[in-house]
Amino acid sequence: MGLFLNRHPLLKQQVKTLANGVADIPWKNFFDMMLGDETILVKALFNKLAIPNWKRFCETLTTIFEQVKDNKGGAVATYIPELGCADPDWFGISVVSVDGQYFSLGDSGIEYPIESCMKPILYSMAIEDHGYDYVHKYVGKEPSGRIFNAFTLNDDNLPHNACINAGAIAVSGLFHKEDPNSARFKEFTRRLSDLGGGMKVGFNQTVYLSEKETGNRNHALAYFMASHPEGFPSVNIENALDYYFQLCSVDVNTDLMAYVASTYANYGVCPTTGAKCLSFENVKRTLQLMFSCGMYDYSGEWACTVGLPSKSGVSGEIFLVVPDSLGVCIYSPPLDKHGNSERGRDFATRLAAEFGWNIFDILFQQYDKKLL
Amino acid sequence: MGLFLNRHPLLKQQVKTLANGVADIPWKNFFDMMLGDETILVKALFNKLAIPNWKRFCETLTTIFEQVKDNKGGAVATYIPELGCADPDWFGISVVSVDGQYFSLGDSGIEYPIESCMKPILYSMAIEDHGYDYVHKYVGKEPSGRIFNAFTLNDDNLPHNACINAGAIAVSGLFHKEDPNSARFKEFTRRLSDLGGGMKVGFNQTVYLSEKETGNRNHALAYFMASHPEGFPSVNIENALDYYFQLCSVDVNTDLMAYVASTYANYGVCPTTGAKCLSFENVKRTLQLMFSCGMYDYSGEWACTVGLPSKSGVSGEIFLVVPDSLGVCIYSPPLDKHGNSERGRDFATRLAAEFGWNIFDILFQQYDKKLL
Amino acid sequence: MGLFLNRHPLLKQQVKTLANGVADIPWKNFFDMMLGDETILVKALFNKLAIPNWKRFCETLTTIFEQVKDNKGGAVATYIPELGCADPDWFGISVVSVDGQYFSLGDSGIEYPIESCMKPILYSMAIEDHGYDYVHKYVGKEPSGRIFNAFTLNDDNLPHNACINAGAIAVSGLFHKEDPNSARFKEFTRRLSDLGGGMKVGFNQTVYLSEKETGNRNHALAYFMASHPEGFPSVNIENALDYYFQLCSVDVNTDLMAYVASTYANYGVCPTTGAKCLSFENVKRTLQLMFSCGMYDYSGEWACTVGLPSKSGVSGEIFLVVPDSLGVCIYSPPLDKHGNSERGRDFATRLAAEFGWNIFDILFQQYDKKLL
Amino acid sequence: MGLFLNRHPLLKQQVKTLANGVADIPWKNFFDMMLGDETILVKALFNKLAIPNWKRFCETLTTIFEQVKDNKGGAVATYIPELGCADPDWFGISVVSVDGQYFSLGDSGIEYPIESCMKPILYSMAIEDHGYDYVHKYVGKEPSGRIFNAFTLNDDNLPHNACINAGAIAVSGLFHKEDPNSARFKEFTRRLSDLGGGMKVGFNQTVYLSEKETGNRNHALAYFMASHPEGFPSVNIENALDYYFQLCSVDVNTDLMAYVASTYANYGVCPTTGAKCLSFENVKRTLQLMFSCGMYDYSGEWACTVGLPSKSGVSGEIFLVVPDSLGVCIYSPPLDKHGNSERGRDFATRLAAEFGWNIFDILFQQYDKKLL
Repeated sequence: MGLFLNRHPLLKQQVKTLANGVADIPWKNFFDMMLGDETILVKALFNKLAIPNWKRFCETLTTIFEQVKDNKGGAVATYIPELGCADPDWFGISVVSVDGQYFSLGDSGIEYPIESCMKPILYSMAIEDHGYDYVHKYVGKEPSGRIFNAFTLNDDNLPHNACINAGAIAVSGLFHKEDPNSARFKEFTRRLSDLGGGMKVGFNQTVYLSEKETGNRNHALAYFMASHPEGFPSVNIENALDYYFQLCSVDVNTDLMAYVASTYANYGVCPTTGAKCLSFENVKRTLQLMFSCGMYDYSGEWACTVGLPSKSGVSGEIFLVVPDSLGVCIYSPPLDKHGNSERGRDFATRLAAEFGWNIFDILFQQYDKKLL
Repeated sequence: MGLFLNRHPLLKQQVKTLANGVADIPWKNFFDMMLGDETILVKALFNKLAIPNWKRFCETLTTIFEQVKDNKGGAVATYIPELGCADPDWFGISVVSVDGQYFSLGDSGIEYPIESCMKPILYSMAIEDHGYDYVHKYVGKEPSGRIFNAFTLNDDNLPHNACINAGAIAVSGLFHKEDPNSARFKEFTRRLSDLGGGMKVGFNQTVYLSEKETGNRNHALAYFMASHPEGFPSVNIENALDYYFQLCSVDVNTDLMAYVASTYANYGVCPTTGAKCLSFENVKRTLQLMFSCGMYDYSGEWACTVGLPSKSGVSGEIFLVVPDSLGVCIYSPPLDKHGNSERGRDFATRLAAEFGWNIFDILFQQYDKKLL
Repeated sequence: MGLFLNRHPLLKQQVKTLANGVADIPWKNFFDMMLGDETILVKALFNKLAIPNWKRFCETLTTIFEQVKDNKGGAVATYIPELGCADPDWFGISVVSVDGQYFSLGDSGIEYPIESCMKPILYSMAIEDHGYDYVHKYVGKEPSGRIFNAFTLNDDNLPHNACINAGAIAVSGLFHKEDPNSARFKEFTRRLSDLGGGMKVGFNQTVYLSEKETGNRNHALAYFMASHPEGFPSVNIENALDYYFQLCSVDVNTDLMAYVASTYANYGVCPTTGAKCLSFENVKRTLQLMFSCGMYDYSGEWACTVGLPSKSGVSGEIFLVVPDSLGVCIYSPPLDKHGNSERGRDFATRLAAEFGWNIFDILFQQYDKKLL
Repeated sequence: MGLFLNRHPLLKQQVKTLANGVADIPWKNFFDMMLGDETILVKALFNKLAIPNWKRFCETLTTIFEQVKDNKGGAVATYIPELGCADPDWFGISVVSVDGQYFSLGDSGIEYPIESCMKPILYSMAIEDHGYDYVHKYVGKEPSGRIFNAFTLNDDNLPHNACINAGAIAVSGLFHKEDPNSARFKEFTRRLSDLGGGMKVGFNQTVYLSEKETGNRNHALAYFMASHPEGFPSVNIENALDYYFQLCSVDVNTDLMAYVASTYANYGVCPTTGAKCLSFENVKRTLQLMFSCGMYDYSGEWACTVGLPSKSGVSGEIFLVVPDSLGVCIYSPPLDKHGNSERGRDFATRLAAEFGWNIFDILFQQYDKKLL
């Protein structure tokens, strides 16, 4: 448990605070936190943890990590220069269980722009704040069968879903649209941090400026949507685009994103802080979106080979949600031809196969057997 | 158990056979079948059934059925005259649990052409017989974001998936392509019957002839595929199309299709005959296909509101698979604007909500609570 | 000739100036102008005029005009409110021969925004100033087979031609792009006036602001082009769009546009001022563009029924060029379903049939017979 | 005139017939034919010929021919094996004036399949026999902006025009559809021969069989059209396709096709036989079609650089019509990237530039000057 206390970010901070004598948290509260009915300690004692044997689980992750490290396939994205500066050897993973257990390997601390991984997160915040029906007045619910920046709308002249660029721009247009972008930006990053157990969220100004400069296609998409009657949720198209570019340029690392994923895996409640970030209903809707549309035009194949709600970003990250069990984030810049991290795909595929985590495996209840 | 013995088709036949004294099945075998470790009787005694309280479950189904009966929305398909003859009031449902329990309501015995519901079934037979990789040389794995007869191929010049017309025609072209269509037809119907617990499979000659006559778009799709180098699995395009039309014209009822669905729900093993029809791997692949592409361009919304692998046909049927639990089939001819049975959609939505059967509900393990 | 002196705008002004004694044009120059080898007086004496019997020609125009006046078909465009204010009864025509003869009927003095009719004019200025090859680095030469604001580029990722919105925006981007928009605007209007015999060119600020406000689709087109490598001629996309909206909002009337058309009919030399506005080569290229692409997706039918290089605008004007003979402009706001002025189409069709002006009629040299 | 008598096919035959004493054509008729008011002899005496100085004209053709011969660009089409057998060095031209003067160079006698060049010819026969309005119930009048076998219909679900495959297939479906294909084939070839001054028309069985075998895309196009209500003119789709393939496989040479072109140049009257093959109205409609759609997706550029109604075929021929003057046919198998004969394009471009034959040059009446 020493290791655990050291690595669990919330506990680490509290232990440190207590050790320094600077906090006045009553010892009683601390013990409640540690020893209440549903705490990790109690669960561990009764073997009720989502991942019953964490140590063996981490050993298996390490084995897979070493195998995947040698995969030199793919190429770093270069459409904006800053992304092209990434080292193709960077490779990090982080996992957080719904019981708050944490483990990481490799370059888990390197910061990278969140890019498309912000899309399902923004979507879940938007349906939480503005209602599912309102958001879907401006964005559909179907896979598009097209690449992420495809120039197409569905039969109702809406973007197919919130995980393609057009859809995410539409959601950027409606999310607290009455507020200035400064307040809107603060709102997103504050809540991203909440989802991530209170970890710090950064911003990459170079990426932001590059995104704006190379964003002609996204401009075109936004104006294209707005050219249909009632087709765009905001009168201020440039504002919506600017907000979209800002959110794409938020800096994260695999630790943060694994905590975020674990909150989705845990009904919308952050496993380490206990904060209720999203309603269970909206968590399910977001996972459904990620499952069908999260991996670009590889989503169908991904559903077969990995079978977990996941989202990929051009900077080379993939985060996955194992419902009721685990959040995972992988980062490695070289991308395969579908725009997904090559090592990320490789790692996720082996992980899911090893533990039988394909949703349809889980549904058939064979999943316990492998972990025990 | 009297009721059960009367309605379970396999048992009913065997009891009858035994009663008539015409069979020489030793009594010992009969008791083994009834009282072996995993039989329904034993499971029921130990409350280990997939649907623990079958009687209460059937009562709930009846309530929903009565509610949905009054839904007069939608319109009967008329693109082929024979379909237009269907009575818009017809409404039947059948359910079969993975333990072989059976229940039906309304017009469960009316025969109707299987139409598009044959697509995932043919697909599962094809990957079983010819291998997953071989089949996917000719058909993709991604949702298309388009209507079922859309005139489009993916970036590899293949149909997007096996649940759109183009994909099903391609699979019709490769399935035992070296055999004559007579043998190929027999093979499909024999195995459909196996999947359905040995029930009889019919054929609707009128529908077949109508399909051929009105099949210009399907002809166009087939030749369009074949116009790309190596784009079609068979040199005999007309033969492939003819086979496709034949399979669409197979006559079924909701009883048969509920048994079929239960076999998919039960790992590919028919719950009533114990016959191993499909490998577990291929069952999962088929369910994945149905989940992402089974409900035409309503598949994404369906995944949110029903959240179960399902397939719809233009004659007005929908069959659903609740993995590890249940097969369901609903039949009612009037279709909504997406081409799905209006009452079918309505019933399925209420059913899934009532029992928490959305896949993401199941994954979060809340599903037991409602049934108990 | 009295009538002629009164209506010929240049002569009218000069006669007036001379009469007022405020000009010092030597009488000798005046007589040179009136009696030189190629003047209208001399041509008329020797019956060498393009339209030999002008009086009879104008009588025929009047008859057709009266017939078309009763055509109450079509509807005024409303996509920007200012256009919707036009009176559906407005109907005016003006004609100017390559000998400078002028005639008009109805509302020839009403000002309206030039809209799409600026496209071929801007194109001819652009190829004149920047070269044919340079301009066609950014815009194609083929009909698009699509409506004017279609969202499509050709196989080289260029707009199909300079008469669809995307093409005109591209030309707006390259035309004297190093200058500020104020100078660029002055340049276009000055030269439009030159093409129109020195007539005044106006500007409609309300239309300009409305165009900008409703121009989402044009914004989308511009950014879409710019999203392809080397796809847009200017780095300043917003500037190009603003210039495009300005040019669409230039105010003209049928007199001005008939003079412009006559300059094109006269090898690029203004028949009344003698100013060389465009090279003959570029006049032919522009007429070729108008012939194949000038009437939106009715261009092919137009080529059959009218068969003259023409351009249509959403405000309800059509201007036509009868090479070596005549410029014509018709204005009447109600549009048919292809976006062409209903009365304009009607008038032009009757006019071309009456005089055998379809290009293929002219080529077969039957054209003289009808006019004599 | 000796040369002329020897080369003019009709005269040659008649002279031969007379010489053999096997015909009973009265000498009076012969002299009438030779010396009537509008005969070539009389016209030549009064210098009223379309090409006044035939000898100088032929010398210029010879010079251009020699220049173009060295152009080794392009590649022979190989999509059907028989076409791939063509010798890339083959190069022939034939010209026939509207006065019946004939000249040829190089491989003018080599037979090749007519392929797409049959499209405007079939179209003109169809509008002649069945009416312009009836034919255009099934095919549009607009350029498509797409390649010849593009998979697209216009907004009325019709092929864009009769010069793309889909349009030609539709016309093949309606042309004397009540007759058997044998009679239909005879009808087309008989009238093609009439258009060509009575010259023999062949058939290439190898090409026909190859076209059928590789015609999947054309099959797809036909069924696609037929899948729209009232979208195809014949209930017998396979029959229509078979007829289409037959017509594509008709064998011609440049002599025949130059005579055909001269008939179009001469108001629909064959210059050598005097037979009235087509109405003047339908000739103009066909030339309009060829002008806007004859050269695949190079038609717009062709209109600028050559500016004459032309049609191109994949076997490497181009035939051009100079209205009121000349028919031209060029044959050389290597094709450029647009599918037009490389040497054909080169020759036509030089020819039109040399004689100022661009339609817009002719319209501006500068054309006489060059020929005199």
